[in-house]
Amino acid sequence: MVMAPPAEPGMAWDEIDTPALVIDLDAFERNLKRMADAVAGTGARLRPHAKTHKSPIVARKQIAHGAVGACCQKVSEAEILVRGGVDDVLVSNEVVGRRKLDRLAALAREARVAVCVDDRQNVDDVAAAAARMDVRLDVLVEIDVGAGRCGIAPGAPAVALAEAIAEAPALRFAGLQAYHGSAQHIRDHGERKAAIDGAIAVTRETVEQLAARGLACDIVGGAGTGTFEMEAASGVYTELQAGSYIFMDADYARNRKADGGPFDTFEHALFVMATVMSAPTPTRAVVDAGHKAAAIDSGLPETFNRAGLTYKKPSDEHGVLAIDGSNEPPRLGDKILLVPGHCDPTVNLHDWYIGVRGLGSDDAHVETVWPVAARGALF
Amino acid sequence: MVMAPPAEPGMAWDEIDTPALVIDLDAFERNLKRMADAVAGTGARLRPHAKTHKSPIVARKQIAHGAVGACCQKVSEAEILVRGGVDDVLVSNEVVGRRKLDRLAALAREARVAVCVDDRQNVDDVAAAAARMDVRLDVLVEIDVGAGRCGIAPGAPAVALAEAIAEAPALRFAGLQAYHGSAQHIRDHGERKAAIDGAIAVTRETVEQLAARGLACDIVGGAGTGTFEMEAASGVYTELQAGSYIFMDADYARNRKADGGPFDTFEHALFVMATVMSAPTPTRAVVDAGHKAAAIDSGLPETFNRAGLTYKKPSDEHGVLAIDGSNEPPRLGDKILLVPGHCDPTVNLHDWYIGVRGLGSDDAHVETVWPVAARGALF
Repeated sequence: MVMAPPAEPGMAWDEIDTPALVIDLDAFERNLKRMADAVAGTGARLRPHAKTHKSPIVARKQIAHGAVGACCQKVSEAEILVRGGVDDVLVSNEVVGRRKLDRLAALAREARVAVCVDDRQNVDDVAAAAARMDVRLDVLVEIDVGAGRCGIAPGAPAVALAEAIAEAPALRFAGLQAYHGSAQHIRDHGERKAAIDGAIAVTRETVEQLAARGLACDIVGGAGTGTFEMEAASGVYTELQAGSYIFMDADYARNRKADGGPFDTFEHALFVMATVMSAPTPTRAVVDAGHKAAAIDSGLPETFNRAGLTYKKPSDEHGVLAIDGSNEPPRLGDKILLVPGHCDPTVNLHDWYIGVRGLGSDDAHVETVWPVAARGALF
Repeated sequence: MVMAPPAEPGMAWDEIDTPALVIDLDAFERNLKRMADAVAGTGARLRPHAKTHKSPIVARKQIAHGAVGACCQKVSEAEILVRGGVDDVLVSNEVVGRRKLDRLAALAREARVAVCVDDRQNVDDVAAAAARMDVRLDVLVEIDVGAGRCGIAPGAPAVALAEAIAEAPALRFAGLQAYHGSAQHIRDHGERKAAIDGAIAVTRETVEQLAARGLACDIVGGAGTGTFEMEAASGVYTELQAGSYIFMDADYARNRKADGGPFDTFEHALFVMATVMSAPTPTRAVVDAGHKAAAIDSGLPETFNRAGLTYKKPSDEHGVLAIDGSNEPPRLGDKILLVPGHCDPTVNLHDWYIGVRGLGSDDAHVETVWPVAARGALF
């Protein structure tokens, strides 16, 4: 079931039913522009990750700000992006299984579609699907640059896999996927840079080994919101896959910049709006947003502009607000904005974005409602 | 968007696309029967919590096994249950806000609907909605019996609230909601019983104080899968709201029985089925199920019947399998069953249940596909 949206355009912001996923459109648009400005002149292209927003509407806005396309993780996400008007999609992930591979290959009839591999057998399976669908698929070799998840070892193993791709008639070797996911959230700038320097070094070496075999990398892709300036300056990476910058969650806000200050390049633009639905004691209130409304894998949501209230003890449909007494206590029916700990899995819990203009001002109102089109796009 | 189901009836179990939410129908049916047997003769009624399964199909099966109706937490869940053929629904939670209350009251035209309150103003708001919709709503007073979430204090404050309900023409005082949520997962049986003994004592005292004012409790509701036998034996609780028993997650399996043995009254009947989509080293494989496929609020998913494989390091679309080498290593494309740490929020991530008959046997096959009808029913 898809629920009806919790608000309609024109409503005052406090008429939004809750829990709701609210975009501060003003902050969101500033984030769009700041990333475009940050990437301009670096020589690298921006291919933002749609796993953050799961929305072709947002992806098209990023493209209007200079992005060359989108990344995603699942074939179903790629389908939704292409059907929503995005014509250049990289599945920055391995795809295993004939049903999925046939869908992926079929999609390459409608848009430029690329996919990653890290296994020799998988190359043959991707090639077979491309042949069945009579398309030529762009294929990247994913290398493990330190994250310890997917990816073949850099250097010779990656080169051998690239050669297998280049030899497959239905495939085109398109480059390297070299994302260091676990580096994104290293708080200290120097430690974060050391991790990315390592990723850059093994990626550079692999690119050079490939070049020695006559294999050019159109795409050398990686980077997230926590490190994109480092990969952009590397001279090796050609595409930056940052996604979270568009919304900026509580976890990324814990990163530090080179000067030790907080990572404030981007603003919080995404909130879970909740309502106080119980206020049983002077030190405790309860809001209607718990695990079903906000993900906790990267820490609990944080209250926004409500000093003295701390979100604690989430259960499926509830969150407890600890009240420290320093401010007016929340009352039944009060609307509370929560900054999600992690945007991507939080967005996946909602069917609709409620776009608010003028959030924080007296005439804050709902300007637009966008579907989270790739919510639940699991396979 | 609602995705197409990842399987169709008749498919062999290993043809299910992944990640998928799989019900072992044989274990599920045994759980249904075991709970019916456990409650029969206790004098208490079973009103299972639909927040676990979010499905009128499952609720109706529970009712066919003797349950008197269903509980849920949200008005939207109540709507979906009633529209799906469940004609007696208790919203075991407070409902705040005119839009929600009007929908709740309107639903009382189609089914028996009850709701909880813990606040004097909220009584007036519920009564006003009932009057607007020209219905009489059943209202329970929620008391805090130790969980420290919603609920007014037991005793005199609860009695005063019950009197306000009884005096409101559009409302009927229907009893007490007295659920001790945080007691459900206390591992040691004795400690768990001590917590529930406390809940029973304050609930009994409140019931007696209400009776002294001429206020009878039709429903004294509470209990979960971890403690239902205690409330059933109390002579005070009349309705048991256990829900998780139907699927039995990894977290509940960590509880201990009175004899110290594992809590094995019910069987694991719900799984997230995943596929190995990368196997880059002898000690590490990666499956296609992460935060978007399984909730982690009560611990990570556990591999099922695959000794030597430990699920670790989930990210949004991936989970790492640590391979200890004691068994045949997983291969690309292998299907892995994961027992969710917590069923309720895991179910909320999926659009479809894939019901498998004969899971574990050579002819395991998809027998049925059910929608997770109240997936995303947030408000």
